[in-house]
Amino acid sequence: MATESELIAALTRVFTQKNDESILVGIGDDAAVIKVPLTPVVLATDMAVEGSHFTRSWSTLYEIGAKVASANLADIFAMGGKPEYLLVAAALPSGFSVAEIEELAGGIADEAASVGATIVGGDLTVSDQMVIAISVFGSVGRPILRSGAKVGDDVVISKVPGQSAAGFDLLNRGIRDSQSLEHRNPTVEYQKAQAIAAIAHSMCDISDGLISELTHIAKASGVQIVIARSEIMSASGFEERERLAVEYGVDVWQWILHGGEDHAFVATVPAGSNLPSGFIKIGSVVEGARVLVDGFIMEHEGFRHFS
Amino acid sequence: MATESELIAALTRVFTQKNDESILVGIGDDAAVIKVPLTPVVLATDMAVEGSHFTRSWSTLYEIGAKVASANLADIFAMGGKPEYLLVAAALPSGFSVAEIEELAGGIADEAASVGATIVGGDLTVSDQMVIAISVFGSVGRPILRSGAKVGDDVVISKVPGQSAAGFDLLNRGIRDSQSLEHRNPTVEYQKAQAIAAIAHSMCDISDGLISELTHIAKASGVQIVIARSEIMSASGFEERERLAVEYGVDVWQWILHGGEDHAFVATVPAGSNLPSGFIKIGSVVEGARVLVDGFIMEHEGFRHFS
Repeated sequence: MATESELIAALTRVFTQKNDESILVGIGDDAAVIKVPLTPVVLATDMAVEGSHFTRSWSTLYEIGAKVASANLADIFAMGGKPEYLLVAAALPSGFSVAEIEELAGGIADEAASVGATIVGGDLTVSDQMVIAISVFGSVGRPILRSGAKVGDDVVISKVPGQSAAGFDLLNRGIRDSQSLEHRNPTVEYQKAQAIAAIAHSMCDISDGLISELTHIAKASGVQIVIARSEIMSASGFEERERLAVEYGVDVWQWILHGGEDHAFVATVPAGSNLPSGFIKIGSVVEGARVLVDGFIMEHEGFRHFS
Repeated sequence: MATESELIAALTRVFTQKNDESILVGIGDDAAVIKVPLTPVVLATDMAVEGSHFTRSWSTLYEIGAKVASANLADIFAMGGKPEYLLVAAALPSGFSVAEIEELAGGIADEAASVGATIVGGDLTVSDQMVIAISVFGSVGRPILRSGAKVGDDVVISKVPGQSAAGFDLLNRGIRDSQSLEHRNPTVEYQKAQAIAAIAHSMCDISDGLISELTHIAKASGVQIVIARSEIMSASGFEERERLAVEYGVDVWQWILHGGEDHAFVATVPAGSNLPSGFIKIGSVVEGARVLVDGFIMEHEGFRHFS
């Protein structure tokens, strides 16, 4: 079995991918030191637990690494920010090999590199259940908050949500195809997030489901959000989603309105804005305090891990 | 049982302790935003797992929170830095109550407040085993690296190490007294760390044991470190440690040279430096590549979680 030193040496090899002059001290000391010209700084952390957020039975370690990293990076983009540096803490089962840790770290490093971010430090420990916690920090010009929605705004999404939820349902039925891949390793539309951030009044990534995120925006902004299903039904991607739902006897709106882990982006923008390519207008911001879909009041508290 | 929203509301209450104008966005959005005048920025992450780093059978949740936070804060001080902001990610068993999370968060918040740092964000999830990952970031004027030791330096420590290890051995024998308390909730000498950082060439906190940390410094600096046990034996605190070791049939040097989780600080400083109050000179830096104690070569790879 590998020693801790061997695993850390492997991590250091995989994570040290570029010579970044802004990194004064990287992996290997008590802490990392960055010569940051980032003001304001945006930072977020996310923890993923085996069996709850991912499973080795249908995901490779590379996919798990990429998926956990993408959830963190999406949070920074959802603020209108650009991720720059990551800290990776992992609790791994004893007996983890150098090859396994290289694969996991490779998924994290490649996802980070896809947005120009670098891993500068971390921690490694042992546990029965695999747990990965990533912290990301970066720069943000104008932070886009949940509380910024204004009465009169259009509500827009970067794609029809529910692809990850659909993949999860398929995987639970033993089906491993291109749809289920999206749950194992979701594609986060980072460029779309940057494009909409330029005009958005408020913004979230859809990590806990569309209705849950809209509820956050409505509460934080003191507004009401009204959504029309017809707008979503006429969008690209809906038909394919519906066909799949019918095939497997699932309510397609459960996937679209409540499916999590998509890392699509939802935003409110000034009414009549020219939308960046691929964005779909699905509703409006009005006075009030709720989220309505076709006139029905939606109640959602997000994914209740603790209930 | 508490819902996730109730737990997050409790965390937000406990963690939002002061009105800090540098925090543009705190807990409650996708990410935190800090208006940082910190350059360079120093950052580190640490993960603690129930059963490995702490146990609820002999520590309160408050003590666990404080202990995990102190390990992180010590890393920043060991770089010569000052911690400013913390991100806290926790995986907790389902059924955790609001009172329990308030106690855990209170330990983290109080330890952070003791050095003037604030929790600005986090993540909460569920797992069988309790796991806490904290990331800290702060400012550092002159980073003190492991690689900075120079031939001719004195080697100094902030106190006789081994108190946490002694406490652990006592707890394992069922003894809960003031000695064992130090393992449950170690006192980190943050002020001493700041004082020695002003003159140190190299520095570590003794989280993995004195010999382990000295080995890191020797390797990173390309030097040899020679320690004399007589220097430690004449220091304040040694006699009490030895008396306890004899009482319980333990080798006191096992505690002092290899005991971890003390968060005492070891540094190398220019020969003959006036030491800050409480520091003990225990040896010197010479040419070579090893750590020697009374002429004996020490071999230590740190705490082998993965062997």
